[in-house]
Amino acid sequence: MKLASLRHGRDGRLVVVSDDLAWCAAPPPMFPTLQAALDDWHHAEPILRGVAESLAHDAVPHSRFHERDVAAPLPRAYQWADGSAYVNHVELVRKARGAELPASFWTDPLMYQGGSDRFLAPRDPIPFQDAGWGLDLEAEVVVVTGDVPQGASRDQALAAIRLVGLVNDVSLRGLIPDELAKGFGFVQSKPASALSPVFVTPDALGDRWRDGKLPGVLSVDLNGQPFGRADAGIDMTFDFGTLIAHLAKTRSITAGSIIGSGTVSNRGPDGGPGQPVASGGAGYSCIAEVRMVETIENGAPATPFLAPGDVVRIEMLDDRHHSIFGAIEQTVA
Amino acid sequence: MKLASLRHGRDGRLVVVSDDLAWCAAPPPMFPTLQAALDDWHHAEPILRGVAESLAHDAVPHSRFHERDVAAPLPRAYQWADGSAYVNHVELVRKARGAELPASFWTDPLMYQGGSDRFLAPRDPIPFQDAGWGLDLEAEVVVVTGDVPQGASRDQALAAIRLVGLVNDVSLRGLIPDELAKGFGFVQSKPASALSPVFVTPDALGDRWRDGKLPGVLSVDLNGQPFGRADAGIDMTFDFGTLIAHLAKTRSITAGSIIGSGTVSNRGPDGGPGQPVASGGAGYSCIAEVRMVETIENGAPATPFLAPGDVVRIEMLDDRHHSIFGAIEQTVA
Repeated sequence: MKLASLRHGRDGRLVVVSDDLAWCAAPPPMFPTLQAALDDWHHAEPILRGVAESLAHDAVPHSRFHERDVAAPLPRAYQWADGSAYVNHVELVRKARGAELPASFWTDPLMYQGGSDRFLAPRDPIPFQDAGWGLDLEAEVVVVTGDVPQGASRDQALAAIRLVGLVNDVSLRGLIPDELAKGFGFVQSKPASALSPVFVTPDALGDRWRDGKLPGVLSVDLNGQPFGRADAGIDMTFDFGTLIAHLAKTRSITAGSIIGSGTVSNRGPDGGPGQPVASGGAGYSCIAEVRMVETIENGAPATPFLAPGDVVRIEMLDDRHHSIFGAIEQTVA
Repeated sequence: MKLASLRHGRDGRLVVVSDDLAWCAAPPPMFPTLQAALDDWHHAEPILRGVAESLAHDAVPHSRFHERDVAAPLPRAYQWADGSAYVNHVELVRKARGAELPASFWTDPLMYQGGSDRFLAPRDPIPFQDAGWGLDLEAEVVVVTGDVPQGASRDQALAAIRLVGLVNDVSLRGLIPDELAKGFGFVQSKPASALSPVFVTPDALGDRWRDGKLPGVLSVDLNGQPFGRADAGIDMTFDFGTLIAHLAKTRSITAGSIIGSGTVSNRGPDGGPGQPVASGGAGYSCIAEVRMVETIENGAPATPFLAPGDVVRIEMLDDRHHSIFGAIEQTVA
């Protein structure tokens, strides 16, 4: 089942979307928003699945679904907690500045509490404000949880995953070092992120959902050129069950919480940094990573951060080359 | 005007509360929750003020208000960003572990993004889970904002403050050092916080609201004994306008965001650490601070962290000794 939110008020209007992203149908009025459905998923899920089945058989009023026009599936959420599950990425960042990766990073997930009060729509422009802020994209996988009790196990956490989607976790690289040094996490260096047009239930992902990971190529294009083709199922040190259990260690998690994987990143075949797509590699899911590789290899970065007019596209295709979540496609304003 | 949320569903049911906290009245059904009112404050405010005026004149159906029975005013929120405005407190923490306070801490606010998906009711127990986690209270002032545009000035930010209240920002001291070292902020070391029974509009605070600060003694009792009597208007290096503008530097803020002052803390008369209430001092708004003072003075802390059965009470009285926000009173479970 695929769900999206049409633009309407602060929370959008929930619709059920056909598997091919061509059509959508409205659920009954007791579930006007995705958050309302997540709040009462036990009742909402069978009703929404009924709408999805009727939609698949043309047995319910429906209209064209235009992923260009939708809001984020959750235009605002009660939680956005973003992990750094691709530890390879973190190791590269450290290496570029000559720092060792603490051994604990391979066993204890890195995670930060992000701002969840606003998510950009998948085609919203990315505001450009100051060249010194180092505007970057980060292509990631996200899941949306139901209620998770404090102390939940990995298996309990996995069972509480309601939906899967993609995010462009917009980052301001120039502001990160000072905030990291304070130790209090990211406040100014993480402006609003953009979510994919639709979120999908795990069962509808087939073999693209396995052990709390989303195997498959996450396509990142920059100005129409392939920039990243990393496999989100590879080099993910911590699966989503482990990330959610980490967050739930000391407190319960409320339905509608969005949990991120961190920037998807694959090692090169030799275990070192990945190579650019143009050189046959899996490329990168953020600009910072290619700049780190350039720094390690040539002593200085060459690829610039995002500038006005740049276009970022993030998408995942299924085995028939159909878009699973729709595309995040944002122009830097 | 004073507002509260009766226990009902995930978001409570909004009520207007009399100034003496004795009575409450329901607003019209278009504003069933506090978040709904904040979402449309321009329309909600005059309607709610009308209810408040009718309540003051017995001209509207009303019932007894029992602060023991209410939910948090916002049982879940879209944002909880907590500052460390009482830099004195931060300096003491550093001093206790022999570290210098960076000079920038006096000019650049410390702030972290907290979990906002659940706030405890003012009389909810504080869960005790592991003695090694070092359970602590933190008595703070909070404000709730309307929509704040990106790049807002301090004055714009001050004008966007809708409500003022208190929080017990529950902290797990034993987990903080490792999370600080990671640089990614607090994820496991900050479980759910408790909010005061009512939130109050700034105009209703009279001379208790000045220049984005809440002057007056914040009373903290531990097991019935005075523990903290710090003045929240003193030693607050960054007022709420400055804190909000800090958060809004790179992104807009959505209505209903809760911004915290950080632990209220007053210096002693000699500029050094404050003395216990029993010694005539202003005492402390968290246990960590008295432990720091003990460490600085005696080489080791003596006051234990919270244990099951301990009772924490946080309240602010007006000049007539009436409770302004009602009391947060929590027993450690």
